[in-house]
Amino acid sequence: MKLQLSCDMLSLQSAIKLIEQALPSVDIIELGTPLVLNNGLSALSVIKKRFPTKTVLADLKIMDGGYEAAQMAFENGADIVTVLGLASVNTLGQVIQCARDWHKQVMVDMIEVEDLEGRLELCKSLQPDYVCIHTAVDRGKTRPPIEELRSVRKVMPEALVAVAGGINLASLPVIVQEKPDVVIVGREIANAPDPQAVAWQIKNKLA
Amino acid sequence: MKLQLSCDMLSLQSAIKLIEQALPSVDIIELGTPLVLNNGLSALSVIKKRFPTKTVLADLKIMDGGYEAAQMAFENGADIVTVLGLASVNTLGQVIQCARDWHKQVMVDMIEVEDLEGRLELCKSLQPDYVCIHTAVDRGKTRPPIEELRSVRKVMPEALVAVAGGINLASLPVIVQEKPDVVIVGREIANAPDPQAVAWQIKNKLA
Repeated sequence: MKLQLSCDMLSLQSAIKLIEQALPSVDIIELGTPLVLNNGLSALSVIKKRFPTKTVLADLKIMDGGYEAAQMAFENGADIVTVLGLASVNTLGQVIQCARDWHKQVMVDMIEVEDLEGRLELCKSLQPDYVCIHTAVDRGKTRPPIEELRSVRKVMPEALVAVAGGINLASLPVIVQEKPDVVIVGREIANAPDPQAVAWQIKNKLA
Repeated sequence: MKLQLSCDMLSLQSAIKLIEQALPSVDIIELGTPLVLNNGLSALSVIKKRFPTKTVLADLKIMDGGYEAAQMAFENGADIVTVLGLASVNTLGQVIQCARDWHKQVMVDMIEVEDLEGRLELCKSLQPDYVCIHTAVDRGKTRPPIEELRSVRKVMPEALVAVAGGINLASLPVIVQEKPDVVIVGREIANAPDPQAVAWQIKNKLA
């Protein structure tokens, strides 16, 4: 299981500092939406140049203009871009086509999808690389999305599965039992007094 | 009826050039998602300082982290921010609360909403300033969304209604009959040989 570190702060310097601390435990560096909005996509190039051996994900949550938006991310150094599972099939298809053209990857973010199995069936033929089961932070604390993880495994057994949304050391064991391919953690590491130690503790549980 | 000019190019300089050409006919300047992604939110401050008498809209299509994302837009000079109609009620509420705190406005973008009346009923009590009926560009050419405009008028008579998605001089007359409060036009003006003339022709039909 891989650890994706979600960098949701506003400052690029703070993000770099956090990444440097957590680096040995991190597989995928995620540039969160606030970081991208505040700094523009050039933040991606900076991060990719600074950490060239790490996979970098741009959390653009694409909803429309799929090909162009994905291309902007890949041009700036992203290895993976996110598209909303609620986007139209055309948009999903464009993002995935762009990733194929660039030899890059796509994560479909299922945030706020109500009919998950329906959406999975619809996405299946497009063969995205990753499907992310994501509980919105604005929804507050919720139970780990175990049923949803199992639905992805059932409907799209070939996709890599990521899980996101307020994951912390306390909720991790239940999630780990389901063996997702990627566990996405943000605040639990970023807000820790010792981010390096917490990232290591989390990565250790994913082994 | 107001004309909102959607600036969806990548370059801030190209956007400024287009806005200067179309300026007399434009009521609301929209910084589209690609422009914001490429330049970061500082592009907003630049535009607002350059055109201080115009209303500036940041098309962030917020899906999560509502209060923080909206606040970033308002801090950078936006008068209106967009949130996806598909976001959770909590996110919608946070964006609208942030706008109230900043004495700014919110446009709820109904892009990809399937059950429009259901979503409108859900949004009603939150009293967003604008509701946008939006046909995704990735869906290609579609009929003007007349039924959808009427649904907004029926369910949320107090909201201002905007309409977006590939609107051009040919499709404008049918839309104008429904008297939306805001008509959003991008490519038809941006790609015209004479953007000033086309913007004027469109604004003239909205009078």
